[in-house]
Amino acid sequence: MELTECFSPEQLKRLSPQEVEQLLPKLRERITEVVARNGGHLASNLGVVELTVALHRVFDAPKDKIIFDVGHQCYTHKILTERGESFDTLRAFNGISGFPKCSESAYDAYGTGHASTALSAALGMARARDLKGGDEHIIAVVGDGAFTGGMCYEALNDAGSNKTPLIIILNDNQMSINKNVGALSNYLTYMRTSKGWLDAKKAISAYLRKTPLAGEALYGFIQRFKNHIRNVFVRDTFFSAMGFRYLGPIDGQDEANLERMLARAKRLTEPVVLHVATTKGSGYAPAELMPDKMHGTPPFHVENGQPKMTSVARSFGAAAGTTLLEMAAEDDTIVAVTAAMTDSTGLKRFQKEYPHRLFDVGIAEEHAVILAAGMARGGLKPFVAIYDTFMQRAVDQVIVDVCLQNLPVVFLMDRAALSGEDGPTHHGVFGVSWMRSIPNLTVFSPRCVEELDAMIRAAAKLGGPVAIRYPRAEGMAQAAIPYKGFTLGKWEVMLPGRDVALIAVGNMTSEAVRMHKWLKDKGYDAQVVNASTIKPLDRDCLMHLTMKHTPYVVMEEQQLAGGLGSAIMEECLTRGLRMPMHVFAIADHFVQHGRHDELLKQQHLDFESMAQVTLQFLVEASEAQG
Amino acid sequence: MELTECFSPEQLKRLSPQEVEQLLPKLRERITEVVARNGGHLASNLGVVELTVALHRVFDAPKDKIIFDVGHQCYTHKILTERGESFDTLRAFNGISGFPKCSESAYDAYGTGHASTALSAALGMARARDLKGGDEHIIAVVGDGAFTGGMCYEALNDAGSNKTPLIIILNDNQMSINKNVGALSNYLTYMRTSKGWLDAKKAISAYLRKTPLAGEALYGFIQRFKNHIRNVFVRDTFFSAMGFRYLGPIDGQDEANLERMLARAKRLTEPVVLHVATTKGSGYAPAELMPDKMHGTPPFHVENGQPKMTSVARSFGAAAGTTLLEMAAEDDTIVAVTAAMTDSTGLKRFQKEYPHRLFDVGIAEEHAVILAAGMARGGLKPFVAIYDTFMQRAVDQVIVDVCLQNLPVVFLMDRAALSGEDGPTHHGVFGVSWMRSIPNLTVFSPRCVEELDAMIRAAAKLGGPVAIRYPRAEGMAQAAIPYKGFTLGKWEVMLPGRDVALIAVGNMTSEAVRMHKWLKDKGYDAQVVNASTIKPLDRDCLMHLTMKHTPYVVMEEQQLAGGLGSAIMEECLTRGLRMPMHVFAIADHFVQHGRHDELLKQQHLDFESMAQVTLQFLVEASEAQG
Repeated sequence: MELTECFSPEQLKRLSPQEVEQLLPKLRERITEVVARNGGHLASNLGVVELTVALHRVFDAPKDKIIFDVGHQCYTHKILTERGESFDTLRAFNGISGFPKCSESAYDAYGTGHASTALSAALGMARARDLKGGDEHIIAVVGDGAFTGGMCYEALNDAGSNKTPLIIILNDNQMSINKNVGALSNYLTYMRTSKGWLDAKKAISAYLRKTPLAGEALYGFIQRFKNHIRNVFVRDTFFSAMGFRYLGPIDGQDEANLERMLARAKRLTEPVVLHVATTKGSGYAPAELMPDKMHGTPPFHVENGQPKMTSVARSFGAAAGTTLLEMAAEDDTIVAVTAAMTDSTGLKRFQKEYPHRLFDVGIAEEHAVILAAGMARGGLKPFVAIYDTFMQRAVDQVIVDVCLQNLPVVFLMDRAALSGEDGPTHHGVFGVSWMRSIPNLTVFSPRCVEELDAMIRAAAKLGGPVAIRYPRAEGMAQAAIPYKGFTLGKWEVMLPGRDVALIAVGNMTSEAVRMHKWLKDKGYDAQVVNASTIKPLDRDCLMHLTMKHTPYVVMEEQQLAGGLGSAIMEECLTRGLRMPMHVFAIADHFVQHGRHDELLKQQHLDFESMAQVTLQFLVEASEAQG
Repeated sequence: MELTECFSPEQLKRLSPQEVEQLLPKLRERITEVVARNGGHLASNLGVVELTVALHRVFDAPKDKIIFDVGHQCYTHKILTERGESFDTLRAFNGISGFPKCSESAYDAYGTGHASTALSAALGMARARDLKGGDEHIIAVVGDGAFTGGMCYEALNDAGSNKTPLIIILNDNQMSINKNVGALSNYLTYMRTSKGWLDAKKAISAYLRKTPLAGEALYGFIQRFKNHIRNVFVRDTFFSAMGFRYLGPIDGQDEANLERMLARAKRLTEPVVLHVATTKGSGYAPAELMPDKMHGTPPFHVENGQPKMTSVARSFGAAAGTTLLEMAAEDDTIVAVTAAMTDSTGLKRFQKEYPHRLFDVGIAEEHAVILAAGMARGGLKPFVAIYDTFMQRAVDQVIVDVCLQNLPVVFLMDRAALSGEDGPTHHGVFGVSWMRSIPNLTVFSPRCVEELDAMIRAAAKLGGPVAIRYPRAEGMAQAAIPYKGFTLGKWEVMLPGRDVALIAVGNMTSEAVRMHKWLKDKGYDAQVVNASTIKPLDRDCLMHLTMKHTPYVVMEEQQLAGGLGSAIMEECLTRGLRMPMHVFAIADHFVQHGRHDELLKQQHLDFESMAQVTLQFLVEASEAQG
């Protein structure tokens, strides 16, 4: 069979078991080939090929609702649901999304991107079904990594007490993005071990002895599934305590058995957890060997899994890790906290050198922030490394626990910019709006790794909460301008100029440097200012521009509402200073996925678009004067 | 003994058991008397008198750290820790806080106010202790209500897997603010029931039979504590699965036994949960009978618990409840979601009429929001009633789940203003800053209950996400102005005037009306505009003010950074409109606790302060013209 654009679950259902077996490697091949070309999530997708096929053969999507937690494991699902060919455009601008997206397909029952949401959403959909008298099945596919998130527990607690029928597939691959952590992880491991299996065998034989009638039926059942069901009867304590029926663990790479167990779960009319043990990267050796490296990957060579090109831009995350490592050697009180992101936030070496001072709490940002607050209260200097977009999970904790108590916690907020191909769930473009409103919080944004280093050191000395927001890597144009050093609250004049000032932050300093050159060709001498401290603002700089009657624009890769531009206007209104001519920022809509430069262009935030607008203002101003 | 200002844990430790017994009613009397006068939390405090006394006799604060989750149960603690007399000023302006506050006393180990944070903070402090080589004990006192919050689970998961020694007191009063919900609650009830106790007895006797040596020691132990320890040996599954040692449940009103069990927990070097069953309101009949009404209470008559005065201002929460009830009768798809706040958000009657359409998820705001998103995806129209300050818990869920998917979820955000006596943890003053930056989200703020009614009906028809932010009750001055009706995106001119416009939102409309009168006496004719739609803004109104050359000020009870004033400035900059003369809002600091009018005055946001500033601007402007 061909994985055409119209290949649907209906066609999948008509396949014989033999044809299904033939389909599985084709799916793996297709996923590997496209991710090798476009970049994307690999290991997690290869692990759930069988599970996804079985789900679509047992259930009737789109009537039945399949919700993928986090959603980065939805590739097989997309290929099987009438997107077999357009899967080529995965993660490309105007192409299909790397995450489930309701506006893309009716088969995508619920949009995801951040972890631990599927149980709550599934429960909501199940309750809607029950109130409306529907009979569709609601299935949530959740990784064991996502189970470190407290929302899973909140949803289990709610669903289990109300006995709302829904099916949770616990996709246990023994990993979140990094190696999984926590008591529940230990518990799941116990459930998977041979010890558990031995207990099960004992329990089963005891059960058979005690209940001859039921025992007979059970005996047939056991015979039928033999080793597939490892320990259905191992005493589950956790999920039972939460009011769920627990089934498993079963082999997640055995499609036929998955179908049988899913059919069984389908017949039950209570909340069910089906524990499925999968192998990340299954079927593609490089991904099986390096599941963390091939979790999210740039384009790579299919033959060996090696990345196609190494970036020349310097990584901010790596720089942050290096600085922390140096500081930790001199100061015993420095500790690092991360939420399942040790590697991608640059803390791998820190973990190796100081395993007892690196705390990976799993996907649990709320806990991470308060843990750090407690540590700060206890006399440590915690650095919390969490992506900007995931810090949205812990806004209340930043306000009430860290900033109200004015505790010396430093937030290292990586990916604080448009995320590119990951799309709207991952764009780090709201951080300034909410952080700026919080008293006691200092907010920095470096233009280069040297500045990040200086900022981290300055933050450690400040004695209060600091957030440092930075994109993945340095911009190329700004790198050509020698760095002049960092002073808290003072902006850096990267390039002098008297006709207009370009106040830029983070990524945008690079666009400003390009814009400076463009304007020079048009006869305008533009000053480039690196607004390295977002809060507090550099009042002297604004005062100076006012006194010199220099018009200026603000450039930021953030939502306009409440961003740096607004901060500057608030300051100008309060102190009677000159207002900006214009603020270049993201308008009031969600930005889609695609290459970073494509997205900037679409938002009219590429240097040429911004330069045109600025030029227009300057021309109008001189005409008004003339 | 006297509960003087210098009465300390040291003195408490020197009391004989008889003296302690005499102290208990004195503490209850003192708490009841002060709360009857000042208002505050009553039922929860009366329940933990014995527990708090026992804690301070067994542990050595401030060296040992006692963290009160939520913190509203800290009154006994405050009285016993050198605040016996200043307890008179509880919750008063410049008086002592109703919550633990580190800047107030060294005995307050960690500041709290929002639920479910203590475990994470305690774990952070325990790890700081271990890294620094300290030997202090860390104790977290957490209610069963707070245990519905996912952060508790995240912290248990982390602590249990790392075996960090710390002591969790599970204060089980079978209530959160409303009746407690969820599977864990059922589980705890099971642990408390006589069935559990019977199981325990069986288990104990079986244990004694099997292990004669250990059995003997155990027998003595059992004899010693007799009925006090109800079922130490009941098989706990939940906390054990999470890696904790479980002790209990024990009677939380038996001080002597609490001391013994705390001493036992103190000796253990692993994570311990001590399950203590307390009675909310214990020792004061009205509070025992109405623990939910006397959870947080205004001043009341000690003899019968009845409130001293009934407010004349109309409650927004009650109005929202009435509107929803009416709409629910006509539209089956309308459902309500609340996070342990059914009563205080006005949904009691809704719950009574439509028990299957009201979902109280416990203190689990994150889950509440995604549950609603799932319901909306399933075709329902969910209204989520959560206080503004607690919505900070669910920022990411509002962005990624509700707004990115453009789902028709309506947020009813009560207490969106300075909270008064509850103080900085409860002020609802950040909502506009973060909500305004979210695409697809419409934000309303009514000036009166009629407008709230109209807004809720408009929101239900909108087909996208809406947040309606309102204070507890209507302002008195605005109530004198007849309400003219609501149109989405159009601001209401409450009072005409041509010299200056006062653009006010929510609570501030009342101050604006007062200001109008004040300015009239000075010869200025001020227009009062009710900025009922915060997002989108009323462009026509701003355009009109620009064309008429009318100066205007903006008045909001919100942080200045990113508030309505900034929204207006962004709009004005983008469209070339007239900028405001001034924005009256909360400056960049946390506001303390106290009466609402005292706080406004302190922030220079009372009508007189604002009128003075506005007058100054007007005088300067006419001088400049003259």
